[in-house]
Parts: sequence; structure tokens; C-alpha cells
Amino acid sequence: MSQQVVIGVDYGTLSGRAVVVAVEDGSELGSAVFEYPHAVLEQRLPSGSPLGHAWALQVPADWREVLRRTVPAALEAAGVRPDQVIGIGTDFTACTVLPTNAEGVPLCELDGLADRPHAYPKLWKHHAAQGQADRINALAEERGEPWLRRYGGKISSEWQFAKALQVLEEDPEVFGLAARWIEAADWIIWELCGRETRNLCTAGYKGVYQDGYPSKEYLEALSPGFSALLAKIDHPLSAMGERAGGLSAAGAALTGLPEGIAVAIGNVDAHVTAVAAQAVEPGQMLAVMGTSTCHVMNSDALGEVPGMCGVVENGIVPGLWGYEAGQSGVGDIFAWFLRCGLPPEYVAEASERGLSGHELLTEKAARQAVGQHGLVALDWHNGNRSILVDHDLSGVLVGCTLGTTPEDIYRALLEATAFGTRTIIDAFERAGVGVGELVVAGGLLRSPFLMQLYADVTRRPLSTLDSEQGPALGSAIHAAVAAGAHPGVRAASAAMGRIHRNAYVPDPRRADAYDALYAVYTELHDHFGRHGGVLHTLRGIRDAAS
Amino acid sequence: MSQQVVIGVDYGTLSGRAVVVAVEDGSELGSAVFEYPHAVLEQRLPSGSPLGHAWALQVPADWREVLRRTVPAALEAAGVRPDQVIGIGTDFTACTVLPTNAEGVPLCELDGLADRPHAYPKLWKHHAAQGQADRINALAEERGEPWLRRYGGKISSEWQFAKALQVLEEDPEVFGLAARWIEAADWIIWELCGRETRNLCTAGYKGVYQDGYPSKEYLEALSPGFSALLAKIDHPLSAMGERAGGLSAAGAALTGLPEGIAVAIGNVDAHVTAVAAQAVEPGQMLAVMGTSTCHVMNSDALGEVPGMCGVVENGIVPGLWGYEAGQSGVGDIFAWFLRCGLPPEYVAEASERGLSGHELLTEKAARQAVGQHGLVALDWHNGNRSILVDHDLSGVLVGCTLGTTPEDIYRALLEATAFGTRTIIDAFERAGVGVGELVVAGGLLRSPFLMQLYADVTRRPLSTLDSEQGPALGSAIHAAVAAGAHPGVRAASAAMGRIHRNAYVPDPRRADAYDALYAVYTELHDHFGRHGGVLHTLRGIRDAAS
Repeated sequence: MSQQVVIGVDYGTLSGRAVVVAVEDGSELGSAVFEYPHAVLEQRLPSGSPLGHAWALQVPADWREVLRRTVPAALEAAGVRPDQVIGIGTDFTACTVLPTNAEGVPLCELDGLADRPHAYPKLWKHHAAQGQADRINALAEERGEPWLRRYGGKISSEWQFAKALQVLEEDPEVFGLAARWIEAADWIIWELCGRETRNLCTAGYKGVYQDGYPSKEYLEALSPGFSALLAKIDHPLSAMGERAGGLSAAGAALTGLPEGIAVAIGNVDAHVTAVAAQAVEPGQMLAVMGTSTCHVMNSDALGEVPGMCGVVENGIVPGLWGYEAGQSGVGDIFAWFLRCGLPPEYVAEASERGLSGHELLTEKAARQAVGQHGLVALDWHNGNRSILVDHDLSGVLVGCTLGTTPEDIYRALLEATAFGTRTIIDAFERAGVGVGELVVAGGLLRSPFLMQLYADVTRRPLSTLDSEQGPALGSAIHAAVAAGAHPGVRAASAAMGRIHRNAYVPDPRRADAYDALYAVYTELHDHFGRHGGVLHTLRGIRDAAS
Repeated sequence: MSQQVVIGVDYGTLSGRAVVVAVEDGSELGSAVFEYPHAVLEQRLPSGSPLGHAWALQVPADWREVLRRTVPAALEAAGVRPDQVIGIGTDFTACTVLPTNAEGVPLCELDGLADRPHAYPKLWKHHAAQGQADRINALAEERGEPWLRRYGGKISSEWQFAKALQVLEEDPEVFGLAARWIEAADWIIWELCGRETRNLCTAGYKGVYQDGYPSKEYLEALSPGFSALLAKIDHPLSAMGERAGGLSAAGAALTGLPEGIAVAIGNVDAHVTAVAAQAVEPGQMLAVMGTSTCHVMNSDALGEVPGMCGVVENGIVPGLWGYEAGQSGVGDIFAWFLRCGLPPEYVAEASERGLSGHELLTEKAARQAVGQHGLVALDWHNGNRSILVDHDLSGVLVGCTLGTTPEDIYRALLEATAFGTRTIIDAFERAGVGVGELVVAGGLLRSPFLMQLYADVTRRPLSTLDSEQGPALGSAIHAAVAAGAHPGVRAASAAMGRIHRNAYVPDPRRADAYDALYAVYTELHDHFGRHGGVLHTLRGIRDAAS
């Protein structure tokens, strides 16, 4: 009998990838990637019409093309026949959201709307709705809207309501034409199975759904007519791992897969990775570490964690409270430091030895005893998401001398991000939500020094995702659940997830030494983040001068 | 009739230089430099015997050799005959101090003592007497010694008493053999005119002479037997510009100058520069800006300025109170930042355009509006002399984002040193000692951008020394006074000093903008310098880890 497989498709910011995975044990058999032809629209529409500052749109046809190209290519790479595939699952960036007509056709694809910016999907990093977000938060605060505390006291300009309000206010005609306002995560499922579904995860984390959406009264108070949004998003919500439907004839034609196979409910890249990394039990905190870090964790406890991105019942796996938190800058900060330059002799040494700048600095930094550099940094170069929710903060470096070296500063920046993670963990614990271990996915897990540092600083065992394809693997696991091959998401995660358990364990001596630096970090964190207006003053001076 | 000239000889850390100067108008006619063959003894004696940590010695024969080489060479370069020379003046690094016998012969030149480290002159930057300085300060504070406040509440390990106490405690025999304990500034005069003299400037600033030296009781309480130092330093003090004597036959043989010409009382490099730069009237603050900055100013007011290095009556010119203050790191901080590296494209651009890294960064930084970089730094990479007197402080940088560039940070560091100078000026003014203008000497005056920045930040007109040979010119001016060619130091300074008056004037708009950044600097200064133990904690962690 042929091996049964599922396909996971991961939609990233610039490309989509498909992975063919064995249902039985999660083996990854083959994969393929396709880069979006239109990438991100930031300056202008395909027609040439210019976009405003901080816009970021995408083109739905690119997403369809991912299915058409990568699914057959991944099967071929895996040496697997289409008739072995029993299900397909997907995950998407979020909140990436678009207006469609009642049949799910993106408005930008309708006659006469191709030149209307608001008819296009707004990518997660569309930041032009900050004004709307500010008003959403101020009014919610003023009215004491109960959902606000579930999002750490502030919702993001990236989310569904801020983006929708921008459409209403800047192009009311498009807002009116939009029968549906839908996450790309759900739209792609509609493309695959021919019927609309909505997933609990994006509704909860990006649509502020908490046993219901914000009230009509609140939305009308925000902007007259805005409550019309409720009808555009209203739909039953499906739990993660549910079967959205069978692959439609159109979906089969697009992908080359058999009609009728299971299509899993839509999902989000970070959240689906928790399943791939077997970080689904209470207290297992997944950190997806790349340019920034997204923390995702399940708990049986409901707590109000300051600065969390959101807590959603059944948001990640059924039966548990799913938490999300984040650090706005991590790998981005390390890359920034390297962009600022290295001494010529470092550049020469790295080149001679075939090392990257990161590798060379890590090697040099790793020779030091904890605290030897005499530095502490605040990792706020891109603002602070959790736990302060303040994007007007900025980075701080304390303790420089004439003997301070690039590797000293580099190490201090690595440490700062670890202290940032510990600050988040401490906030969870103070809110009564226990954090027992750290599970790391994302590109930064390739640095053993950084991983050991995180284990030492957080005083927790650290496991690592044992796959290069975390989100796609997670989507495949959801596909297997939707196809009925495993009894549920947690069981499927146990069978198919891939983790290197306790790859790093804290060293008590180093952990003690880091405690002393973390105390300094906390003092700086509280001084600059809570009491001091210095960073806000500087931001104001900068903005006025620019 | 032939033009009358004087010779100024400036003893620096690594070399000595002679300049031939016209008595009438201060024209510099010729100069010559000689590098000390032994440079600075930091690792071992000429015999090979090793030195301890932080030692810095020099060899007196090198200083004699400067006279023998540079005086004839400078005359030849100037096309001036020896018989046109009417006087010679000198200035020295300070406190550079040595033990001699009763005839002024350095102990290290006596039989059997060449292998005894404590028999050698201790250069200003000999830092191995910190333990002694700490005890000197603690006991003075405890006993309420009245002189302590004249030195900003703390004296330096670089000064005469700390260095002498180290000799007593580590080599009491050498201490006993030393009939005289004398500044090199005075010793070189003894070499030239065959008689011991002592100048008011080094006695006041480095020997804590305030109408008398510290008491016998205090010195004995510090260390039994230490009061014997008083006899070794006791000598009438001469005012600046006085004639020490006539050039001796030995001095004439050494220099090729006529026997009997005027030899001026010894002096100190920074203080003598005030005369060269015509910064001798009350409220004209001279800043000698190089790796660090030394501030020298006269006033008719006596004030107790926190963190000043010292205030000495007649210390710089007769009839006024002479103040000294300082910033521990200035050009050193800019050089440190460049050592940390620049992006490859910057290195390439500087190389193509024949610019130094400093020039390129300055050019890029100068294009910005004030405050546009969003940064403020604390310039404490080498500790803080004035006004905090705390060498366990360290540098701070606040406001970094992922868009922060090397020129942003560079400019923030330049600004930080200007804010440091303004902090000192403000401290003088608060103590009732007015500061009307800034006069700059030293290598950093070559940066017009930096000079304009200092004028804007301090809101004061900024004049610049119009000579490459500030200290040597100042010494020559003192020689002219000693020879009777001008009626006094202030008159000679007016006739022979060289200044570009008001080379930079503050721009009110930029000054207003800098005020906002300075307010942030002051907040950080007081937080980290006065209230917060963070920098001390970090220093402690570093030292324990190293």
C-alpha cells in the first residue's frame, strides 16, 4: 500500500512554499518555493498609480500561482503521486486582509477597480492605518470596551478593524462594494474548496473576536457607517484542524490534486508552527525567532498579561487558551549592528575564513565570561511590543569604554533580546500563566551560542524545531487532522511534529551571572520604558527635525 | 638692527619641540622636533627590569637631548643667529615629577640606582598610585582638610602627593635618598640656569599648594614618615613669567645659546597655551581639545566649582584666580568609534575621495538638521573628570533605531562632548564664576563643524588659537616677559599671542534646537551620574568577570 501524504502550503511575505509530508510520522518528502511576481506593492499599483506612505499591498493572483506551481513541483520532488495525497492545509501571514464580492472574488479583480488601492489586499505590514488604530484604542479605552484587555490594552494598526476603517474613510465606495472583508488565510481556503469559512485564530488574534465582535454602538461611535463591517465579517468560526470542505473541481484543476480531498481550515504562520514544534501543551512557549520574535503559547489558565498581542480561547489548539506576544526587533537589531560596520581586520578575517560577520562576532563574543564586556543594552531599536506596547521607544546601550569592542556590543545586543524574552516570560508568570519551557523555531535557531544564551538567561530548558519548514509542516499536520488521519491537533502534533527536545539546558553558574545583568536590564527597562520620557522626547525632537 | 627673538620649548608626552618667535609680534620663524629615544617606559626599565601595571616613567637624558637637538635646529630653520635670542621659556606635561639629589641630579642617574623604578621620573599618566590617591582623598575628607574643596573635592592619582606616597611605601630607601621631589617643569629650569626654582602653577595645580602645603599632621596620619616630603618640596614659589635666572655656562653649551640670557620660570603645557591664545582675561575659557580636553580659565572671582581640577591664585597669570577643569575623553571617543568599524562602502568612499574616516563622517553628519538623528550620548567612555570626578562611569547611547547610521552615532558623540563642555561652563556660572567666551586650541580645532557645534551648544562666541605650536608659543611669550621685553604676561600675550577672534558665533536657531537635546543630556547625566548606580554596578560586574 502506498504511503499517505498531506501537503502544507505556507504563504510568507515574499513567497509561498509547499511541503509534502508523510501522514504517519511527519517526514518531509519534498518541497517547492515560488516567489510572488508582484512581491509587495509599496510604491505603486501594477497600473502605475502611486501609493501613499507606509502602504503595503499584495496581488491575489500571486497566491493562486503559488498553488499552481508549488504543489505539483513538491510532489515531483518527493516522488509522490497525487493520488497519495489525502489533504491540504495552508497558513498565511496575518493580518493580511482583503475586500471581496459575495462570491469571494477580490475587488481588485473586478472590472473598473484595478486602479483603486483600497480594492487590494492589505499585507500585514501595511502601516498606513495608524491614525485609525489610535482612535480605535482611545475610544475603546474611554468606553471601557471589555475586549481591550485581552489584547494587552492596545490593538495594532496592522489588524482588521484599523485597516477596514481606513477603507471606509478613504474610499467609502470600495467599502460599500465589499460584501466580504476576509483574511487571506480564509480567502485561500475559499479558493480551494469553493465555500467561505472563517478560522478562530485570525478572528481572535486579528479581528478582536472574543465571544463576539465589538459592538455596533462602539463601531458607529468610531465612525458613522462603520458598523456595516459586522455583516462583512460575520460567519461561523471553525476550530483549528477542522475540515473546511473537499477540494473543489477548480481547486483540483489548480493544484493537480484529486477533487474531494480534505482542505483544512485556514491558519496563521506563527501559530501553526507551534503544532509543528510540538509546543502545544500548557506552558510550552514557542518563540519564532527571526527579524522579530513572535511568542505563541497555550495555557489552561486565562490571565491578562500586560502587552500581550492577544489571548484567544481555542486560538491555537482546541481546549486551551492561546496566547501571543512579541518582540519588535531581534535579528533585525543584529543585522543593523553589522550594517553600521566592522573594523577592516574583522572583515578580512571573516572573508579569509569563509565566515559571515555574524559568525565571526559570535565566535569572538563567545570567548568572554558573562558580564565581562561591562555592557547592557535595551532591545528597542524597532520599538517594544510586549510588554510595553510602545513603538516610540528606541535602543539604548550603556557601559561603553574606550576598550569596548564590536563583539562586546554584539554580545550585549544578543543578550538584550534574551532579557526581552525573559521580561515577557516574567510578565506571563506574574499574570498567573506558567511558562515551563522555551521552544524555538525560525532562522535564529541556527546559532547555538544564541540558543544557549536564551536557555541560560531564561533559566529554562530550550527545545528547537527540527525542521527547516516549520509553518508548512504545521499546515500539513492540520491537513492530516482535517483528513481524519489523526484524532486531533495535539495527537497529530505528537505523531508528526519534529522537535529536538531539551537541545539546550541552562548552566546554573552562567544563569546566576546573567541574573546580575538582567537586574540592570530591568532597571533600564523600567526607567526608560515606564517612568522616563527621555525616549519619547528624543522621538519628538527627531520627528520635528526631519 | 637685528630682530630680537625668544625660544619656547614644549615638552610633550612623546617628543619635545622648540619654536623661534619674534619678540615684537609673536611671528613664528622656525621650529624643530625631537622624539624621546626612550619614549614612555611602561613595560620595563632601560635595564630590562619589568614595571608594574599602569606604570609610566620617562628618562631625563631624553629631555636634555631635546634642548641639544631642537634649539640649534629651530634657529637654523628660522635663519636666526644665536645672538638674536634674548630668552628661553619651557613648558612641560604635568604632573610629571622626579626625585633628585640636592644638586638636582635625577636619582636614576646616580650610581646603583639605574635599576630602581622609583628613582625615575613618573610621567603624568603613571596611574599606579590610585590606591594612595584614594587614601589621600578619604583622609582629607574625614579630617575636613580645607584645601580639598579647591580641587573639586578630590585629587588625582596623577599628582605629586599620590606619586610620592607610592615611592615612600614601595621603595622607602629611594624616598629617603631624594633630597628634592620636583616637577620636571622646574627640573628643566634647574638644568638651564643652574639653580632650583619652583613655579606657582605646578605647585598649585599638582602639589595642592594653597597658601601652604598640606600639614605635617595630615601627612603623618596618612603614613608615618610621609611628612618628610615637605622638606623635599619646600622652596619659594615664583610667579609665571618671572626670570628664573640667566642661562648657565652648561645651559649655553647644551643649547648653543649665549650664556646669561633670560630663562623663564617653568610652566605647564595647557596653562601656557592660554597665554598663546590670548585667553588671559576673566571669563575667557581656553579649551585645549585633543584626545581629552583641558579647560583653563582666569577669573577675578573665587568660586568652588564642583569637579574642577583646581583653582590657584595667580596660577596662570598674575593677579587672577586660575581655574582648571577637564573632560577625560573627547577625541579619544571619536577615535574609538572609528576603531569599532565603518561600513565597507564608507571605507571605499573615504579612500576614493582621499578623506579620513573622521572627515567622511563629519561631512555626512553635517548634512543633518539638529536632532534629526534622534540620539543623545553621554561622553563618559573614559570616565568623567569635571564635574562628577568619577572614573568608574562609562559611555551611554540612547535613541538607536534600525535606521540609525554611523554618521548619526558619530554626530551624537561629537555633540555629547559639547554638552559635556556646556555642563562644565554651567557649573562655573552656578558657582559665580562667569564664562564669557570659549577659546579653542589643540588638534580638534581643525574641524570647523565641531567648532561651530561647540559655539552653538555653549551659546558663546568661539575663538581659535591661530598657531600650530600653542604651548611652545606660550613658553616663548613667557621668555619674552622674563627677558623684560614686555611689561608682563598679559601685555606680552596681547602683543605676541595669536588668535582668530570670534571665528565661530552661535546660530540662535541651532542653539535653540541643541537646548532641547542638552536637556535630555542633562537628564541622562544626572540619572546615570548622580542617582543611578547602574554604571557602577556594570563596572563591578565587569571587573569581577575579568
